[in-house]
Amino acid sequence: MARWEPNAHERLASAAIELFLQQGYENTAVAEIAERAGLTKSTFFRHFTDKREVLFGRDELSRLLAGAITAAPASATPIGAIGAALDAAAAVFGPERRDWARNRQAVITATSELRERELLKRASLVEAMTGAMRERGVRDPVAGLAAEFGYLAFENAFKRWIDPAGRDAFGEVAREELESLREAITELG
Amino acid sequence: MARWEPNAHERLASAAIELFLQQGYENTAVAEIAERAGLTKSTFFRHFTDKREVLFGRDELSRLLAGAITAAPASATPIGAIGAALDAAAAVFGPERRDWARNRQAVITATSELRERELLKRASLVEAMTGAMRERGVRDPVAGLAAEFGYLAFENAFKRWIDPAGRDAFGEVAREELESLREAITELG
Repeated sequence: MARWEPNAHERLASAAIELFLQQGYENTAVAEIAERAGLTKSTFFRHFTDKREVLFGRDELSRLLAGAITAAPASATPIGAIGAALDAAAAVFGPERRDWARNRQAVITATSELRERELLKRASLVEAMTGAMRERGVRDPVAGLAAEFGYLAFENAFKRWIDPAGRDAFGEVAREELESLREAITELG
Repeated sequence: MARWEPNAHERLASAAIELFLQQGYENTAVAEIAERAGLTKSTFFRHFTDKREVLFGRDELSRLLAGAITAAPASATPIGAIGAALDAAAAVFGPERRDWARNRQAVITATSELRERELLKRASLVEAMTGAMRERGVRDPVAGLAAEFGYLAFENAFKRWIDPAGRDAFGEVAREELESLREAITELG
């Protein structure tokens, strides 16, 4: 078998989600994922450290969102910088990833270990976004509030994007959710 | 030994925190906690289902905060209802609980299993507060935003309250943090 396999990463990710949905995350071994993808276990381990990493990656999202906040124009308000972060997310959440993302969420919801891992990821995302806001010169507690606000916008957009009834692109729903939350601010009192 | 032990709950909680700090959470057995408190294991289990419950309780905080939001006057804004929730928390976070709360936080920070448990508790608190906001007739996504805002105010206040350099009562710092976050809103853009 050749060392380089075309689309190995995507084939492994698809095979993993299929098996997690069919037989449960806990009951699925790395060897089965590799077999389903028509690849070897050692190819799997060149792409992922373990089966959990198939679902959670290596903090790419955290780097993407925080990086976009840091790179937003100096004139951007905190919510403007959040908008830039959502645009960056939209560039990677293309329509071809939507079914996979929905299935991934179903696997996470069904597995308490994975729900806990998702909360850890949420905490590290908010921390990274708070740090990026501070780097822009945003003071405390505005930086932390902006990060929580941004996560909520991202989460609301993500839920709508993976909804089977939804049709819109991630970037579109993200802009709408951000605007909807911006209006919500005025009703807090 | 008498069936009823005066202050058994507080004695067990103090003994547990002492041992967790001295020898680590994982290395402490329920039998040791009971012994340190001068009580039996069966007395321990009349008060707590396991040693984790000494630290996290039985969702009393969730009920307390959500209950206060529900009970706030109909005329109160979402932030007004959050203020009522923080007042309710202040009524139970008296000065006599401050050292214990600080030590508890040190134990949680030192133990990854407990940090994950704390994130689960955060999620369930936000969910309970979101539900209480909806019951007040607050629409989505304002309800969720108000709950996140309220948790942030609570968290910021709690951190300041347990800071060894701090001297102020919980109610006082909570009101200040809430006001500080309310001002921060205007800087989001």
